[in-house]
Order: sequence, then C-alpha cells, then structure tokens
Amino acid sequence: MSQPPKHIIGIDPGLRVTGYGVLAIVDGEPSLAEGGVIKSDSAAPLEQRLRQLHAGVEKVLADFPPDVVAVEDLWTHYEHPRTAVLMGHARGVIYLAAVQAGAEVAAYPPALVKRSLTGNGRAPKDQVARMVAQLLGMDTPPKPADVTDALALALCHCVPSRTRMARPRKHRKQLPESIAKLIEDSERS
Amino acid sequence: MSQPPKHIIGIDPGLRVTGYGVLAIVDGEPSLAEGGVIKSDSAAPLEQRLRQLHAGVEKVLADFPPDVVAVEDLWTHYEHPRTAVLMGHARGVIYLAAVQAGAEVAAYPPALVKRSLTGNGRAPKDQVARMVAQLLGMDTPPKPADVTDALALALCHCVPSRTRMARPRKHRKQLPESIAKLIEDSERS
Repeated sequence: MSQPPKHIIGIDPGLRVTGYGVLAIVDGEPSLAEGGVIKSDSAAPLEQRLRQLHAGVEKVLADFPPDVVAVEDLWTHYEHPRTAVLMGHARGVIYLAAVQAGAEVAAYPPALVKRSLTGNGRAPKDQVARMVAQLLGMDTPPKPADVTDALALALCHCVPSRTRMARPRKHRKQLPESIAKLIEDSERS
Repeated sequence: MSQPPKHIIGIDPGLRVTGYGVLAIVDGEPSLAEGGVIKSDSAAPLEQRLRQLHAGVEKVLADFPPDVVAVEDLWTHYEHPRTAVLMGHARGVIYLAAVQAGAEVAAYPPALVKRSLTGNGRAPKDQVARMVAQLLGMDTPPKPADVTDALALALCHCVPSRTRMARPRKHRKQLPESIAKLIEDSERS
C-alpha cells in the first residue's frame, strides 16, 4: 500500500441533504474525525441550492484536506429518473469541489460498500450501520443515516481493492488491524 | 419591461460538448455577440471533466457578464436515465458557475423554446435552427448544432413570458422590433 492519506471523506450526495463523514488515517488506521450534513434551502432556486451545497462541501474539504473523496457510484438503473437527474446536479458540484480541493474521487457501488463492511453485498441497511459504528468504536450508528452512509463509503475505501474484488468474503485478513479486530469482536458478540 | 440585461447567455449542457450562445442586448434588441462549444476530455475522470466544463463556462461568463443564463428545463421523462444523470452533473456545475457569476438562471422547456421562435411547439429542429439564423441576421444556422440550440434558448428568453404562455401564436406582436421584422421577413421569403 502506498503512503496512507491523511483524511478520507465519504460523501452521500443529495440536493436536500448531503451527508459527510471524515476519517483521519493515523498509522494506516482510520478513525472518526468528523461527520455531519449539509442542507440546502428547499425554497431557494436550484442554482442557489447548488451554491449552498458547493460552499458547504468546500468548507468541509478545507477543514479536513482529503486525499480521497469517496462517493457512491452511479447506478445502472433509476426508478425515478427526474429525481436522479437532480441528484446528479448535487453530485456534479460535489465532484467539482473535490477536484478543486485537489482530492481524488473514488466511486463505489452500493453492493461493494456493503460487502466490504459486512462480507455480504446484500446486507440490510441497519447491519451496515451497526458495522460502521463498531468499526469506529461508537456505541450506536451516527445520526442521521446520511452520515452513516457517508462513513460507510469512506470505510469502504480503506479496504484494499484487489482483495475486495477478488475474494470478497476473505478480505478481512487484509484489513487494518483495528478494523479486523472490531469485525471479529462484532462476530463474537 | 424592466431595464434590459446587457448579455443573455444560452447554454446547452452536455458532459462531452456544451454549447453556448451570447446575445448582447442593445436598446432592448438582441444581437449575436459570441457562440461556441466547451468540450471536456472524454478520457479524463468525471471530476476532471466537470472542472474543465466549469472553468470553460466561467470564462464565457467572465468575458460576457450575463444578467441571465438560459438553459433547457429538465424533462419529465428520460429514456436513458444514466446518461441523463451524467448530464445532470454537467448542468449542476453550469448552474453553479452562473450563480457564482451573479447571473439569474432561467430554464425553458424545449416545446416553449420552439413555440417562442416558430409559433409551433413541435417545430422540427432544422426549422428552429433556420429561425435562429434569421433572427440573428445570419445566412445559415451556426455550427455545431449545440451553438444553435444555445442561441435558441437565449432568444426564447427575449420573448416576454406572459405573452408566450398565454397566447403563444400571437407573441410576435410583442417581440422586439428587430426580431419581429426578421420573423416577418422569413415568412415572406
């Protein structure tokens, strides 16, 4: 593995609410540094909402300069295309903020995030949330769910990708020690 | 009518090619000031392409500070949602560039653009293109089509909206004189 980045920021884009979660990487091990949501004023015109979102993300990226911004990959199918196109607007300004901050953007499919964290690509949302909490040493998953989803993306990025893809159910052996230990603990309990 | 803006810029968003057309408003009458396309490097990662697009639009808006940026409104239905979501990314950074430049964004449905220019909301593309050329005193429509589409949006914005909506086939009477004259000429020829 190359030199670990200082911060990995997961972002769960939404025009109304965008969740973010910041992992600080110390000695190759991720720990929770910050998390929250950026909201836009739903009564404002679209261009103003996008500016609010862009400015909010810009601030997070300035406070925690990231090497990588992890986002959810595009889906192959959208049930509500118009909503998805609006989400695309939000995602667009987030990508822009990331590259303007000098960060790389890494996009992960939802199933890969679930599999990386739980070993099961179809794990239910609450199982993923519990694992996020456990991996970060929290008693309960952070609220709102947008923050948990963002942290799941950031944690997913910390799992070596070769292992994740080739042997999804065995990836845990190559996890950072702290994460591997937490996973073990969660399986015992 | 309120004080006319100095520039109205139509933008036809695309991740690969974004067309733009700049109208200068002098004594309330629009004339062609500039038009062109902004291309992104299709081999580059999405975030880089969005930065190229944002920077390109930013430059146009700096060269021709607009009061209004006119874009095509979102559709109610998308045949290729994934492509539409990517277009949404492009549209997002264009909206952002517009608001960052202090411009208002006005979105017009395709049928309204066609109706405003030709009196027919289902006018074929080449008829709209010919009308754009005639309204701007050009022998042939500008190339590529992305520029013509962008200019059609900007021209649509110059038609008073109340008339456009309420009496679409009679709007010509309230068009700026130069436009009305060009429309008359085109009907005689």
